[in-house]
Amino acid sequence: MTIIMKGKAVVDKIQEEVRLKVNILKKQDKYPKLGIIRLGNNPGDRSYEKSIVKNCENLGIQTYIIRRDPSINTYELVKIIEKLNKDSSISGILIFMPLPSHIDEKIIRNTIDPNKDVDCIHPLNLAKVLEGDLNGFVPCTPKAAMEILIYYDMNLEGKSLVIINRSTVVGKPLAMMLLEKDATVTICHSKTKNLKAIIKNADIVVTALGNANYFDKDYFSSESILVDIGTSVDENKKLSGDIDYDDTYDMVKAITPVPGGVGRVTTSILLKHVVDAYRKMDK
Amino acid sequence: MTIIMKGKAVVDKIQEEVRLKVNILKKQDKYPKLGIIRLGNNPGDRSYEKSIVKNCENLGIQTYIIRRDPSINTYELVKIIEKLNKDSSISGILIFMPLPSHIDEKIIRNTIDPNKDVDCIHPLNLAKVLEGDLNGFVPCTPKAAMEILIYYDMNLEGKSLVIINRSTVVGKPLAMMLLEKDATVTICHSKTKNLKAIIKNADIVVTALGNANYFDKDYFSSESILVDIGTSVDENKKLSGDIDYDDTYDMVKAITPVPGGVGRVTTSILLKHVVDAYRKMDK
Repeated sequence: MTIIMKGKAVVDKIQEEVRLKVNILKKQDKYPKLGIIRLGNNPGDRSYEKSIVKNCENLGIQTYIIRRDPSINTYELVKIIEKLNKDSSISGILIFMPLPSHIDEKIIRNTIDPNKDVDCIHPLNLAKVLEGDLNGFVPCTPKAAMEILIYYDMNLEGKSLVIINRSTVVGKPLAMMLLEKDATVTICHSKTKNLKAIIKNADIVVTALGNANYFDKDYFSSESILVDIGTSVDENKKLSGDIDYDDTYDMVKAITPVPGGVGRVTTSILLKHVVDAYRKMDK
Repeated sequence: MTIIMKGKAVVDKIQEEVRLKVNILKKQDKYPKLGIIRLGNNPGDRSYEKSIVKNCENLGIQTYIIRRDPSINTYELVKIIEKLNKDSSISGILIFMPLPSHIDEKIIRNTIDPNKDVDCIHPLNLAKVLEGDLNGFVPCTPKAAMEILIYYDMNLEGKSLVIINRSTVVGKPLAMMLLEKDATVTICHSKTKNLKAIIKNADIVVTALGNANYFDKDYFSSESILVDIGTSVDENKKLSGDIDYDDTYDMVKAITPVPGGVGRVTTSILLKHVVDAYRKMDK
């Protein structure tokens, strides 16, 4: 029987913990607040924002949303971030990425207060991930993948773990986190040769390719544990992962569904960071 | 015929480039200077310092050495670093690591001016490595391994490359650098299972285990390309790499000797950084 690693159970666990912390703060009349900066009207961003706001309301976290036209320049955006940095009522800041190409992303990432950087875009927080210090803010998506593997009791020590993604947001930080759990980590990408053999021999595969249903069951074995971070829309306009779920799910050891897998957990990680940031500020 | 990837040829190339830059500066009466901070009298540190000073003299780089008793406290060490940060005649700062355990290494690493951090210990420089920005200062040892592979024209794109080391100083930054060159990277360590099979199937193996002659020829194939970063003393008090060189060298495709391989290149990378730092300061 395949273990279907649904995100919901993980979300429930994390949200319970967050709610507990929020309630303790509430009794002291203290309210964590997330500042959100969104440029433009991208439908993906809007739906992510909506989901964040809804989750914040459920958990008792306040939100403060700043929407600007994408024609804003780097200097104006820096000013907005600096204002949120100084605002003691704001414990976390989220800036929707990627930014328009005329904005100097490097400057933006260096501007955010590292203590409010709940999405881990400041270099100092990224460096901590490389150093194996996972007590700070780590990028939410790879952290969500980790939380799922841990929640479903997947043993990582000494296991061969293949990551299909080498970005600074997903693949690289995930590799760093998994090394802390003693996995043997292989990072694959578009130039990798013999990808099928590499995947088939792995104990655990985490994929974030963004190509709907790219991997069919031929890539896997009955012992494969699969975490699918990819989300894209297939030819029938259905939200799909990198793995052809229908083809695969009943022949592997464990798999995350899409939707309802990693993506679902990501927002909870973000909100946990907002509350943890508040508690640190409050000390 | 095995390609013996000696460090000397790589050193000559790097030093020629460094010497050229130093000579141009000299004509303008400008002299790059490396500040070295060494605590205690560890024989390994002393011999490394001696080699650095000798190489600096050869290349026309000045040195300013600060030696202190290891009983120095964090605050006093911070003061010394801040003085070097402010000193406009100093373009690079090297602090011998590891520091005595009573010193807060985190504070020290955050104190050094990132622009003078020629050994890449400041988190901002480490973050650049994670981000794939290799134009700043990268850690010298993994960079030396890269330079050797590039000098000897080893194709990295799509190749399976196994690193045996997961430290922040060697294994992790090396993995980040190799991903930029499109290699498929596997990071192994003490908890890795089936290490022999993983190594045997790899195109390129970089090892930094620190266990003299640990890998004999059974680990490799006639196609193996081997870079040995390990340096330790074997039972006959001979300086040896992780790979049993005498057993292995004539049956693989390429190998670095120890001594005379990666270690020899490391100092040149450091001195290149000192001169590059000066040129940036001078702009």
